[in-house]
Amino acid sequence: MGADLVLEVLGEYGGATRVALCEYLRPREPRRHLYRLVADYPRRGGRMLRPSLCIATARAFGAALEDAIGPAVALELLHNAFLVHDDVEDESDERRGRPTMHAMHGVPVAVNVGDALTVVGLRALIDNGAALGARLALLVLEEAERMARESIEGQAIELGWRQDNALTLADGDYLEMVLKKTCWYTTIFPLRVGALIGSRGRAPLEPLLRFGFLLGAAFQITDDLLNLWGDEARYGKELHGDLLEGKRTLMLIRLCEQATAAERERLHDVLATPRPERRPDDVRWLRERMDAYGCLTHANAVAHALAGAARHELAASFDALPPSRDKQFIGALVTWVLERR
Amino acid sequence: MGADLVLEVLGEYGGATRVALCEYLRPREPRRHLYRLVADYPRRGGRMLRPSLCIATARAFGAALEDAIGPAVALELLHNAFLVHDDVEDESDERRGRPTMHAMHGVPVAVNVGDALTVVGLRALIDNGAALGARLALLVLEEAERMARESIEGQAIELGWRQDNALTLADGDYLEMVLKKTCWYTTIFPLRVGALIGSRGRAPLEPLLRFGFLLGAAFQITDDLLNLWGDEARYGKELHGDLLEGKRTLMLIRLCEQATAAERERLHDVLATPRPERRPDDVRWLRERMDAYGCLTHANAVAHALAGAARHELAASFDALPPSRDKQFIGALVTWVLERR
Repeated sequence: MGADLVLEVLGEYGGATRVALCEYLRPREPRRHLYRLVADYPRRGGRMLRPSLCIATARAFGAALEDAIGPAVALELLHNAFLVHDDVEDESDERRGRPTMHAMHGVPVAVNVGDALTVVGLRALIDNGAALGARLALLVLEEAERMARESIEGQAIELGWRQDNALTLADGDYLEMVLKKTCWYTTIFPLRVGALIGSRGRAPLEPLLRFGFLLGAAFQITDDLLNLWGDEARYGKELHGDLLEGKRTLMLIRLCEQATAAERERLHDVLATPRPERRPDDVRWLRERMDAYGCLTHANAVAHALAGAARHELAASFDALPPSRDKQFIGALVTWVLERR
Repeated sequence: MGADLVLEVLGEYGGATRVALCEYLRPREPRRHLYRLVADYPRRGGRMLRPSLCIATARAFGAALEDAIGPAVALELLHNAFLVHDDVEDESDERRGRPTMHAMHGVPVAVNVGDALTVVGLRALIDNGAALGARLALLVLEEAERMARESIEGQAIELGWRQDNALTLADGDYLEMVLKKTCWYTTIFPLRVGALIGSRGRAPLEPLLRFGFLLGAAFQITDDLLNLWGDEARYGKELHGDLLEGKRTLMLIRLCEQATAAERERLHDVLATPRPERRPDDVRWLRERMDAYGCLTHANAVAHALAGAARHELAASFDALPPSRDKQFIGALVTWVLERR
């Protein structure tokens, strides 16, 4: 039942965002080397979780749908900008079941296309001034600046781990990185900006940071698990791509903690190998060792604990608001992020 | 005398910008993989032409120095963000006499550092709200969005030429690209935002687009000429780097126009060679053919013609303003951009 509500709201608000998004993706010159490519990632679909959460929160706090569409569109554009650069930085081959931007058009063009998506997102944020007034539009811009900054810092931390071949990380290091790199885009910005718009800047935003972190971290851990469990066609990224990439997930961190001295040595060598040279049997070995040490079970337990805490934190921001389908949707998301396949 | 005034004002306003810039470049975490690198390009010096022109225009239009510092700092940060990505996209090895960001830290880190510089620049633009009020701060943000968009479009056009190995370009194609890629950052944004702040949004901005284009194009053509004429230590980039890169300058476009069929064939092959494989004797041949066809003389004449037109256009925006050192400085710049070495 909760899952049906989630899919219904994602369909409705996602659809409204997609329509408004078209305005910002209209073909113009230079077309072949820029704007045709700018429209590619945003048109690849996706669940529209981020804009839907932003719109639902705004409505739960009393805004009209129209007032929340602008920030939702900006968020979707900025997130896609981040993905294009993230794919370059992580040397990923696939995004939503198709080749990444730089795999198709080369790194120089992909970097420029990512920059263009940022600017189109900024345009959407500036256009908010007309609907929200200059003061509220500037507050939303401030949240966007913080979101982008946190994500970039999270990305720097993760790139640093890969560069240093870090093997002695703790769960807390992972959670700090995810707070920055995933949660700000996926949950914290949508929640805070929704509340800002709905309350015309009066709602306290700090509790939403806590709720967003707990919900977003549960989401990301589940996403990392799906990369090991999933079915490639439905997941939309390469299965085991994270292992190929040497991504520091809770599972890999757990494996490094539990490994014997001999295993740690092999771990060090496997993870020091550049991605294109990493061998399939190394990937199989990593996966097999993770199972042997119960790393997936551990990560799954952490995700459930975070979601449990999110359920408590939800009350602090939403209990005082009148009942609504939007409030129900946000509550149902907490279960949905764990159970989606 | 004009050159002395230019250097005096660049020293004064450049120094004030540098002090304010420090606020935005303070060390923080993650330091080693991000903020230490974010401060690198902005600290490499440079003439501070862009922020100085912004401050001088603001003062000529009646603003106090303090009101123009924020936008000047933002401009300097955003320009450095653009340079970090531009160096990745052009595969350049040197910037201001030192290795480029990606040459030192790899492409993934450089792309992320460029993004961080953009966000720090956005922070400076948002902070303008306190000094200028929300309405004027949003107008400045709108100019920044346009500046970034034009530059990215200019970059897309130039990357497209390289990808397609374009050999049949005209001077007008070059000037359109330069309007977008150079003039918006170097002259148009500083002039328009200076006028916006000084007149509290009342001055017409269109004449400044025309003046900025003429001044900026004369500046860029001279810069391209210095890359062929210059003395590497003083120029700060690789001498003949543009030839190695296959950059479509007025000189190269002229050479393509004048070349015999046999020369065009060799031109095609030389320019189709990936940069790391381009041979020194090909570069020497390009340079020698440019001299044979008077390509540098032609480009120099175009730069002087544009500067002459800039002198006329200057009057439209500045004649009605009271006399000031700032107004004199802007007038003297028109000669200086042609004569600097």
